[in-house]
Amino acid sequence: MTTPATRSRENTRARLLEAAAQVFAEVGLDGASVEAVCERAGFTRGAFYSNFESKDELFLMLTASVAEVHVSAVRTRVEEMTAEGALAEGCDPIDLVQQVMELGGDDRLGVMLMSEIRIRALRDEQFGIAYLAQEREMVASIAQIVEDIVAAGRLKLRLPADVAARMLMIVWEGMTVRGAMAGQDDERLRHSGSEELGRLVQLLVVDERRID
Amino acid sequence: MTTPATRSRENTRARLLEAAAQVFAEVGLDGASVEAVCERAGFTRGAFYSNFESKDELFLMLTASVAEVHVSAVRTRVEEMTAEGALAEGCDPIDLVQQVMELGGDDRLGVMLMSEIRIRALRDEQFGIAYLAQEREMVASIAQIVEDIVAAGRLKLRLPADVAARMLMIVWEGMTVRGAMAGQDDERLRHSGSEELGRLVQLLVVDERRID
Repeated sequence: MTTPATRSRENTRARLLEAAAQVFAEVGLDGASVEAVCERAGFTRGAFYSNFESKDELFLMLTASVAEVHVSAVRTRVEEMTAEGALAEGCDPIDLVQQVMELGGDDRLGVMLMSEIRIRALRDEQFGIAYLAQEREMVASIAQIVEDIVAAGRLKLRLPADVAARMLMIVWEGMTVRGAMAGQDDERLRHSGSEELGRLVQLLVVDERRID
Repeated sequence: MTTPATRSRENTRARLLEAAAQVFAEVGLDGASVEAVCERAGFTRGAFYSNFESKDELFLMLTASVAEVHVSAVRTRVEEMTAEGALAEGCDPIDLVQQVMELGGDDRLGVMLMSEIRIRALRDEQFGIAYLAQEREMVASIAQIVEDIVAAGRLKLRLPADVAARMLMIVWEGMTVRGAMAGQDDERLRHSGSEELGRLVQLLVVDERRID
């Protein structure tokens, strides 16, 4: 049961995460102090520390939340397409990827955040291990979506779903970071990423209807 | 013709790059000042600026040089294997990747450097464009190696060689950075990277001898 106290706590966490995203976008990870985030959100440090253990935990949660927004949007789109029968009709895997990945979102912020979190994870092994544990959960969510698409489209994967999901995530990340370096806007960024994902998906799937 | 003056200049540049790698490993990109690099190399700032325009150019060259050492080692190994007839004999693509990629090298330093250079390239568009231009040259070198292997092994690629090369580079980078986050040493790092490259190579190549 969701009590008013739980709702209020969730609301506080959401406001702190939103403030953290804003402060991060302005001054980067090193510059985004707990004080600056609290001031932006209009909370005391006491409220902060009753929700997050540390700045590290806040930014780990922010990274998870940015990724989860993306993964959820993709899952919803795939469910809609499954309901419409768009996946059962033998659609082209490349078209499918374009349709599910080119959803809105602040991908440039995601790229910046991931790149800074990566440095933090490389410098501090504890943080690195926490980050990787969180990422494994995201990979599991992506693997589930991949399995749903494969089942709906009567396709066959040439790698285990979790390995395929990790490779898809790495290729998306690698292409969007390069798009951001080239100064692409969010729309072009997503297009660069989804074009390359389409190529990888084509390598990953075997269309069983085409096998003699 | 290599004159003594050219050799001396190359020697100065090599010593500055070596010093830059050492200082970077100790204090990171932000901390690695031109002064600290000059002091480590035993050169004046004048000697530095007659070789590099800026700290940015120095670290761009260092990134290129770390990548080039790796690509050269792979190229040499592939040439040896071609000469031995190891590629014409219908070897397993996964074994091949393990053999060519698990060469020595300071991969952890490469991962740290790439991750910091990435942030710099995201924050400064001019630097980003220079970095991407340099990376395209590296991708072209990798594509040439890929084409040589494909020709020697009578294999067929399912993507153009330059697209395959970029995907291989992104997957290598994505896996080694995650290995470094997990605290893996250089040997384990390379193993994580080459295992995943092997999977991607298996997706990328069609063995024409197996086609009816």
